[in-house]
Amino acid sequence: MTIAPDLLPCFEDIAAAAEALAGKAILTPLLESPLLNDRLGFRLLLKPEMLQRTGSFKFRGAYNRICRIPEADRRRGVVAFSSGNHAQGVAAAARAFGIPATIVMPGDAPAIKIRNTRSWGAEVVLYDRHTENRDLVADRIVAQTGATLVRPYDDRFVMAGQGTIGIELLDQTAAIGATLDAVVVPCGGGGMTAGIATALAQRAPNVALWAAEPEAFDDTRRSLAAGERLGNAPGARSICDSLLSPMPGELTFAINRQRLAGAVPVSDAEALEAMAACFEYFKLIAEPGGAVALAAVLTGRVRPEGAVAVVCSGGNVDPAMFGRALGTT
Amino acid sequence: MTIAPDLLPCFEDIAAAAEALAGKAILTPLLESPLLNDRLGFRLLLKPEMLQRTGSFKFRGAYNRICRIPEADRRRGVVAFSSGNHAQGVAAAARAFGIPATIVMPGDAPAIKIRNTRSWGAEVVLYDRHTENRDLVADRIVAQTGATLVRPYDDRFVMAGQGTIGIELLDQTAAIGATLDAVVVPCGGGGMTAGIATALAQRAPNVALWAAEPEAFDDTRRSLAAGERLGNAPGARSICDSLLSPMPGELTFAINRQRLAGAVPVSDAEALEAMAACFEYFKLIAEPGGAVALAAVLTGRVRPEGAVAVVCSGGNVDPAMFGRALGTT
Repeated sequence: MTIAPDLLPCFEDIAAAAEALAGKAILTPLLESPLLNDRLGFRLLLKPEMLQRTGSFKFRGAYNRICRIPEADRRRGVVAFSSGNHAQGVAAAARAFGIPATIVMPGDAPAIKIRNTRSWGAEVVLYDRHTENRDLVADRIVAQTGATLVRPYDDRFVMAGQGTIGIELLDQTAAIGATLDAVVVPCGGGGMTAGIATALAQRAPNVALWAAEPEAFDDTRRSLAAGERLGNAPGARSICDSLLSPMPGELTFAINRQRLAGAVPVSDAEALEAMAACFEYFKLIAEPGGAVALAAVLTGRVRPEGAVAVVCSGGNVDPAMFGRALGTT
Repeated sequence: MTIAPDLLPCFEDIAAAAEALAGKAILTPLLESPLLNDRLGFRLLLKPEMLQRTGSFKFRGAYNRICRIPEADRRRGVVAFSSGNHAQGVAAAARAFGIPATIVMPGDAPAIKIRNTRSWGAEVVLYDRHTENRDLVADRIVAQTGATLVRPYDDRFVMAGQGTIGIELLDQTAAIGATLDAVVVPCGGGGMTAGIATALAQRAPNVALWAAEPEAFDDTRRSLAAGERLGNAPGARSICDSLLSPMPGELTFAINRQRLAGAVPVSDAEALEAMAACFEYFKLIAEPGGAVALAAVLTGRVRPEGAVAVVCSGGNVDPAMFGRALGTT
C-alpha cells in the first residue's frame, strides 16, 4: 500500500514544530551520571521527558498538532481518546490555547487518570469498552461540536512534535562534545520513534535508532522482521501501560521500517530495574513504559561503541508501582 | 566580632563562579506545574538541584573552591569531612580536576554513602566519632599530604559556588516573564543561603529570601531572633540528614542575618509530604532535607503575592525513606 508523502512528516515540519514549541514545552536537559558511565563502560545520555509538561513527551505532539488546525476550526476545540499520557498531553495543550478539549476514556480507567485529565480543564466522556466503540464515540463528538480529532501517533504533525526531541538531543549532545552512536526510544504506536527517526535521517544519518518495547508487545520487532504490520496477541499483558498499542501505526511504521536499526524486547522485571536505576543515578521518576529504552541499554541488548542517548518518555506512575520498582511495596 | 570583608563572597565572586562552572555543573532547569499552581493560587518555580552532579547542589561550591586553589597546591589534593552530600560533591569535583580527594567519614556512616564517595574515586578515611576528633584527623591529613581542606559552608568560594543557583534562577525567572516575590531555600550551615542572598542583594534586592529548616534544628530562626549564633539541642533528631549542622556558620550567618526575611521551621512529616508532592507534580526524587523549602510553601508558611522560587537542594535518599514519603514502606 502506498502512503501519500504529504501524510508523513519531513525535517522542515520538525524544525517548524521546534519553533512552535519554544517557550511552550520544557526544553528538557540531557543528563549523564559519571557513576553509571563507569559501570557501563560508555557514556549514557538521558533525555528526561518525565520533566515535560504533564509528565510525558505527549504534550509536544499534541501542542504542535493544535498549532496546525486552522484558526476558525481550532476554537471549536479538540477531541482525543486515551486513558493515559496522550489524554493529559492533549488536555494541557488545549488549555494552553484556551480551547475546549473532550477526552474519551474507558469508564474503568483508573480514577487518578480521569481526575488528572479533568484537572487540566478537559471534559471527560466515559464509554463502556465492552459495549461501545471509542472511535464511534469520538466521531459523534466531532459531528456534534466540530472539534478536531487529535490522534495519538498516526498524524504528521503529532510525529513532527515528538521529533523535536531528536533535534534537541542532537544539539545537546554536540554541546557536550559527545560522539553519538545510537539513540534508543520507548516505542508503542511509534509516533515518537518516527519523529526522532525523521530528525536523525536529516541531521545524523549514521546514528542508529533502536526501539524498545515490552516483550509481550513486541509488534514493532515482529513487524520489522515480517516487513508488514503485525498485531499483538489479544490477551497480552504488561505493566508498561503507556506502550500497549495493538499494532504499529500505519504512518509511523512506514517511516520506522526504513529507519530503525531494530527493536528490542524488555521484560516487566527489567523495566522495574531501570526505574530503580533512574531513581539511584538520576533522581528521576520513570514510569514502567518510560524506562524500557534505559532497560534496553542496562541489559546490554543495545551496546554502543561511543555514546548512547536514551529517551525516558514519561513519569506518570502511581506510588504503589513505584514502590514495587524500589522494592519497598 | 568583626569579620574581615575579604572572607565573604561578593557578587563578582558569584559571577566568576558561574563562569568557572559553565559546562562543568548541570544548568538545572526551572520547573513549574500548572496543576500545583492551580492548587496554590500562585506560581511556584522549582529549581531541582537533585539533577545536579552527585545529586545535590554541593558540587557547585566544591568545584568552585578547588578552582581557586593555586595550581601548585591543587595537585596535592583536597580533604573534606562529611558523611553526606558534601563528601560526594568534593569527591566528584576533585575527580573533574584529576586530583586526589580524601574524605573523612565517621566509621558508622551508612555503607551506601561510603561506597558512593569511593565510587567517585575518593579515598575514605574512617574515624571513630566517640573517641576521635574529625578536625584533628583532617588536620593530620593536611599536614601529611599538603592537601587543602574544603569546608562545607564557611568559605568564601564555597558560598560563591552555591550562589550561582541564585543567578540562574533569576535569569530563568526573567526568561519566563514571572514576577518573583520570594525565594525559599533549605538551610543547614547556611552556605547556599548566603550565596543566594549575595546574588539577590545585587540583582534583585526586593525579592525576599526565606530559609527553611527542620523544626528540631531551627538554629537559624533562633539565631536571627537573638542576633547571635545559637546552637541546636545536643539530642535533637530529624530525618533531614543533610541539614543537621550544629549551628549557623560564622561567615554564613554574617551574611544571612542581614539578608534573610526569616527562617521557617518544617516538621519531618511535612518534609515527607513535600517529597510526595515532588513525586506527583514534578516526577523528581527529593531527599527529606532537600524538600523543606517546598514544604515551607506547601504548608502556607511562606505565602507570596506573585511567584515564589523554591530550591530543592538534593535527592540522595534511600529507597526505604522514599517509600515512607509515598506511603508504600
